[in-house]
Amino acid sequence: MENKKLVEAITSMEVDFAKWYTDIVKKAGLMDYSGVRGCMVIEPYGFAIWENIQSILDEKFKKLGHENVSMPMFIPESLLQKEKDHVEGFAPEVAWVTHGGNEKLQERLCVRPTSETLFCDYYSRVVHSWRDLPKLYNQWCSVVRWEKTTRPFLRSVEFHWQEGHTVHETAEEAKEETQRMINLYADFCENELAIPVIKGKKTDKEKFAGALETYTIEALMHDGKALQSGTSHYFGDGFAKAYDITFQDRDNKIRYPHQTSWGLSTRIIGGIIMSHGDNSGLVLPPAIAPIQVIIIPIAMHKQGVLDKAKELKNRLENICRVKIDETDQTPGWKFSQYEMKGVPLRLEIGPKDIEKQQCVIVRRDNREKTFVNLCDLEEKIPILLDSVREGMYNKALDRRESMTYSAQNMEELKSIANSKEGFIKAMWCGDKKCEELIKEEVGLSSRCIPFKQEQISKACVCCGKESGKMVYWGKAY
Amino acid sequence: MENKKLVEAITSMEVDFAKWYTDIVKKAGLMDYSGVRGCMVIEPYGFAIWENIQSILDEKFKKLGHENVSMPMFIPESLLQKEKDHVEGFAPEVAWVTHGGNEKLQERLCVRPTSETLFCDYYSRVVHSWRDLPKLYNQWCSVVRWEKTTRPFLRSVEFHWQEGHTVHETAEEAKEETQRMINLYADFCENELAIPVIKGKKTDKEKFAGALETYTIEALMHDGKALQSGTSHYFGDGFAKAYDITFQDRDNKIRYPHQTSWGLSTRIIGGIIMSHGDNSGLVLPPAIAPIQVIIIPIAMHKQGVLDKAKELKNRLENICRVKIDETDQTPGWKFSQYEMKGVPLRLEIGPKDIEKQQCVIVRRDNREKTFVNLCDLEEKIPILLDSVREGMYNKALDRRESMTYSAQNMEELKSIANSKEGFIKAMWCGDKKCEELIKEEVGLSSRCIPFKQEQISKACVCCGKESGKMVYWGKAY
Repeated sequence: MENKKLVEAITSMEVDFAKWYTDIVKKAGLMDYSGVRGCMVIEPYGFAIWENIQSILDEKFKKLGHENVSMPMFIPESLLQKEKDHVEGFAPEVAWVTHGGNEKLQERLCVRPTSETLFCDYYSRVVHSWRDLPKLYNQWCSVVRWEKTTRPFLRSVEFHWQEGHTVHETAEEAKEETQRMINLYADFCENELAIPVIKGKKTDKEKFAGALETYTIEALMHDGKALQSGTSHYFGDGFAKAYDITFQDRDNKIRYPHQTSWGLSTRIIGGIIMSHGDNSGLVLPPAIAPIQVIIIPIAMHKQGVLDKAKELKNRLENICRVKIDETDQTPGWKFSQYEMKGVPLRLEIGPKDIEKQQCVIVRRDNREKTFVNLCDLEEKIPILLDSVREGMYNKALDRRESMTYSAQNMEELKSIANSKEGFIKAMWCGDKKCEELIKEEVGLSSRCIPFKQEQISKACVCCGKESGKMVYWGKAY
Repeated sequence: MENKKLVEAITSMEVDFAKWYTDIVKKAGLMDYSGVRGCMVIEPYGFAIWENIQSILDEKFKKLGHENVSMPMFIPESLLQKEKDHVEGFAPEVAWVTHGGNEKLQERLCVRPTSETLFCDYYSRVVHSWRDLPKLYNQWCSVVRWEKTTRPFLRSVEFHWQEGHTVHETAEEAKEETQRMINLYADFCENELAIPVIKGKKTDKEKFAGALETYTIEALMHDGKALQSGTSHYFGDGFAKAYDITFQDRDNKIRYPHQTSWGLSTRIIGGIIMSHGDNSGLVLPPAIAPIQVIIIPIAMHKQGVLDKAKELKNRLENICRVKIDETDQTPGWKFSQYEMKGVPLRLEIGPKDIEKQQCVIVRRDNREKTFVNLCDLEEKIPILLDSVREGMYNKALDRRESMTYSAQNMEELKSIANSKEGFIKAMWCGDKKCEELIKEEVGLSSRCIPFKQEQISKACVCCGKESGKMVYWGKAY
């Protein structure tokens, strides 16, 4: 009964995708709405996912020599305004602090929407010589953007992220860093999160406010919309000039250094849900699942069952994140509950299994059932977890490929956009006017100019001029 | 030469204690000032200390069943105002957000100074039955208090901390939690940070705004001032009533739950500096030192030295946080540099050492030099690190004891306060008037009513009434 009730409580994604999404975030215990518009309470299960993401990325960053720091959460208005493009991009969507205690401030402070300005201000004070370079800094924090329309994880007024900010002697070094970090994000998404991504460069229209070049990874969600999942920006020396960051180079000349920034946010949790989830709930990639194996004792009150379940838990604790559910709920209710929470493997153990010295393991991603000899558990669990990861990745990749189309001209582009959801590959001449026309007439934005180019046709899909650039187009979150 | 320059650059603590402190935070690379009054840039070395503190505490919290969550950084004014004592305590020192983008907000939002109100609002929505209890939540974040006078780490407008917020079925359980957490903080300070602390209860005058009881740990700094280093609050059901948190108990009756909160902040980094530092710089307890062993190659360009140093580093990496300094600076400059940074152990290795298959290890805390056979390194380093911890603790404890006095009456109290710096133990009748008079006439505040009571005299130090309570009095940061 309860089992049924629980499953019925999720809207099917075919009926209402947006409702399916919010049902999952609520019912899997990821978040709750707060009293402040657009700000979330991230609940323990949701925050544990973020902690796992943090811990994996933080280790990767540090291995590459990055160090964590903490910048203030406030930016004085005058500091925000020093780089023209940057302030134009962000000023319309910041929260302003105007009073401290009972006093009006002499200068308004904005709550950081991103921290380029703060890092630049700091670098201008501490970078003097080429010996001080590079600085490879990162911070984990939350930032605020005063969005009108918000959705849990995907677009919220406050969100958590990491923002890397680096400063280098040469343009080449900074460009390498920009590439290194977009590659790191792509590998993380594909290997740890089992989300296939398209790596590429943003068009000038879509790039970050103040950047010369923005690289992005784009993932395709169940509903055929794209999710920008991580970005890496090359600034050249534009910020250095605006914030007066200079250094004495190896030839004793005063020069401007070159900078980058790169970020990945809690938005990726939305990406995990919409890449892998199904009508029974979340499906979590093992690398970031708060619980990787849930043990469900069957006929729990029969002698020896709970003891055996606990024994298995103790054994498995050394190799994975494992829990046991010994509550009074029925096994059926528990099955649904942990399917909803997307736990990769379910281990069932009952009196008959104990007799045969085996247990049942069910994969969340494809519901495949395996009988495993109890003595083989330590060997089999890591293999099964890896199969789940691989299965999830292949499923998501197949889906993306089946939802990726090509168009040679505007007619084809419109026809596909009207009848299908997904990515459309098409050539583009590089003119912003064509990009705007496609947005206006077809409702698609350029997602990226992928590193891996293909020759879809010889001419721009919009104006027909000769063109060498293939672009992914789509609707986006 | 450079060596000397570096050492001369720190003001001696006997000359100007405040200057000595700020010299260390700057020169050890812990922080830099930002463009926003009272907000710090925490630099990599300083932030790495905080990361180590976080990781130790987080593990302890989780072992006790606490889970991490994330609450919004904003509190609507109406929500802040629901608990009368709490708002009175905090409203005068909050930062107010009044505009989002270009629009004036209908209701002001304050940047959280602490998050009781947000947790209560959340609990009022998710706590329904005794089955939902306890909730043992914690968050790592930064908070803002609009302080007039600020000092790095000790008192800043924005600071990092963790704040635990728990809700329980019974008053007893909540009281136990309050005690458990103050004990956890005390053990952490004494065992990991080598800082001896006095555990006790705050007087009503000094307790947290909205709490029924506040427990504190108080440490004594080099200059004889006290530092409140962690607090744990018992709220009873006061917040539950103000925020309408109710649950159905085991007898199906609707009741108010009982709550606690507890926090420890980056302020403790100030405590580490002022407990252990000396005129050569920082002295870091091994448990939280970003570098535990620094390897300095001597006569670095002689054949085999650098290779041997690297070999030792590779071996030690498995048992401690180790670095090697292969820069072109002189060994003397490096010695000073890592003394300034408070690295617990310095390992010197040169051609003569290699010949004898040994190295020199110098402790930062007492400069004791040991020759260690290279084959014994893995065994000796952990023992030496533990000796450093023990040595630091004993030194700090001896200092505190030599700076702790007793007073039987106001005359004695004044005379000690005028001539000495430190803690003064004296009896107190419990009357707020006496506490205020001591503050007014002697300039001392009550630090705590220690759990470990002593009978200094039979009467209140101020009014002479019979009294059973011994209080620690002092000047505080």
